[in-house]
Amino acid sequence: MTDLIYEQPLNEKIRSYLRLEYLSEQLIQNLTHDYQHRCFYPLFSLCELNERCDYRSDVIKDIDKQLHLLNAWRSSPQANAQQIDELIASMMGMRESLQTPGRLGSELKQDRFLQALRQRFNMPGACCNFDLPQLHFWLGQPFEQRCHDYEQWIASFKPLLHTVSQLLKLTRDTAEFSSVTANAGFYQGVSDVPLSLIRVKVDTAQGCYPTISGHRNRYAIHFVDFDTQKHTDKAIEFQLAACR
Amino acid sequence: MTDLIYEQPLNEKIRSYLRLEYLSEQLIQNLTHDYQHRCFYPLFSLCELNERCDYRSDVIKDIDKQLHLLNAWRSSPQANAQQIDELIASMMGMRESLQTPGRLGSELKQDRFLQALRQRFNMPGACCNFDLPQLHFWLGQPFEQRCHDYEQWIASFKPLLHTVSQLLKLTRDTAEFSSVTANAGFYQGVSDVPLSLIRVKVDTAQGCYPTISGHRNRYAIHFVDFDTQKHTDKAIEFQLAACR
Repeated sequence: MTDLIYEQPLNEKIRSYLRLEYLSEQLIQNLTHDYQHRCFYPLFSLCELNERCDYRSDVIKDIDKQLHLLNAWRSSPQANAQQIDELIASMMGMRESLQTPGRLGSELKQDRFLQALRQRFNMPGACCNFDLPQLHFWLGQPFEQRCHDYEQWIASFKPLLHTVSQLLKLTRDTAEFSSVTANAGFYQGVSDVPLSLIRVKVDTAQGCYPTISGHRNRYAIHFVDFDTQKHTDKAIEFQLAACR
Repeated sequence: MTDLIYEQPLNEKIRSYLRLEYLSEQLIQNLTHDYQHRCFYPLFSLCELNERCDYRSDVIKDIDKQLHLLNAWRSSPQANAQQIDELIASMMGMRESLQTPGRLGSELKQDRFLQALRQRFNMPGACCNFDLPQLHFWLGQPFEQRCHDYEQWIASFKPLLHTVSQLLKLTRDTAEFSSVTANAGFYQGVSDVPLSLIRVKVDTAQGCYPTISGHRNRYAIHFVDFDTQKHTDKAIEFQLAACR
């Protein structure tokens, strides 16, 4: 039995966060696994996303919202004041770390090695030995050396990625999984409070995956049979968490 | 000491072969290493290259040229007839395997799973859990199962890739490495016979990589210092093979 968790953002903010988190996870994997030239895919994707959009102002707004909630919660009698104070201090630290001048990743645009690679990475099969001899040289360096370089390249993104991961954790912590059934492969949910993230945990042995759609007050889950790539009519038992 | 080999094609045919070989090596790696979603990059690149250009007719022409040379060589008194006969039989087998109807990889265009993935793989960070739940499901399958799927996807490309690899071997076998020096980081070569591939073997400890340019009768090698990304003035000892 292998449970997989599928997540669907219900607003643009969480959508961006999940995208950044996905890339962040890949960056980190590159520091423990030698994926050779493949390590550049998430790095260049992250550069591109950050060139299109500076996520920091939205993230800072989000931190401020969380700080406001935490301060309100702190005065409640059930609150664990020490824990909340730690969380507030941590949030303040993250807020500080995001206030850096210039676009994130702008220093990578000055790096001639990375720029040469980036121009070719979106072209099919265009990273051969003869296209990019400098890449071939770099891949000939020991993994430790390459990790050291990689750490430097990803350094400027780290405060953003760390903050996003913490904010997603807070979002995920707003709901616990509970067991439900999708009759004929379909489930629909409504909520009075605005939701931001739907999480579905389902055993791969059921042979299907969910496609989730919705907005803040309503969402629908269709299960698709992987083999036929069509909607399943079976009743699917799964775990659901609807996060605020 | 780590010797790296850099190769530069001097004509379009060898350029295409090297690109196909590069992708082929990555495909094969995916059958022994679990690179997760990264396994799709070379597969989709290969699909795209084969949609743009059907390499088979050129490869068949090349096989015919090699068969002609082998038949001529066979009548020479120095020839090892048995070895040549084996090579001829193998070439004939490859020629046969390439004569299949339809575009290579066209059956993958009918695969809904692959098509959904391919649409998103060129977009930065666009292969999240929520973009492609079917990918998330597939990655949750055991590696053996995924290898089995992958084997099927790459099967139609195998005859082409195998043939290209053999033709490149014949090309590489036309010259052996010999030691030379690039004074002030520069080396120039001329040849009366038309060349198709320049191979440079250099120790990474020299801290530089070659950039090679040229055409069939003349080529130039500039060594670039990796740290400064500029032409080096040092004398660089290296091994050179100029293949026909």
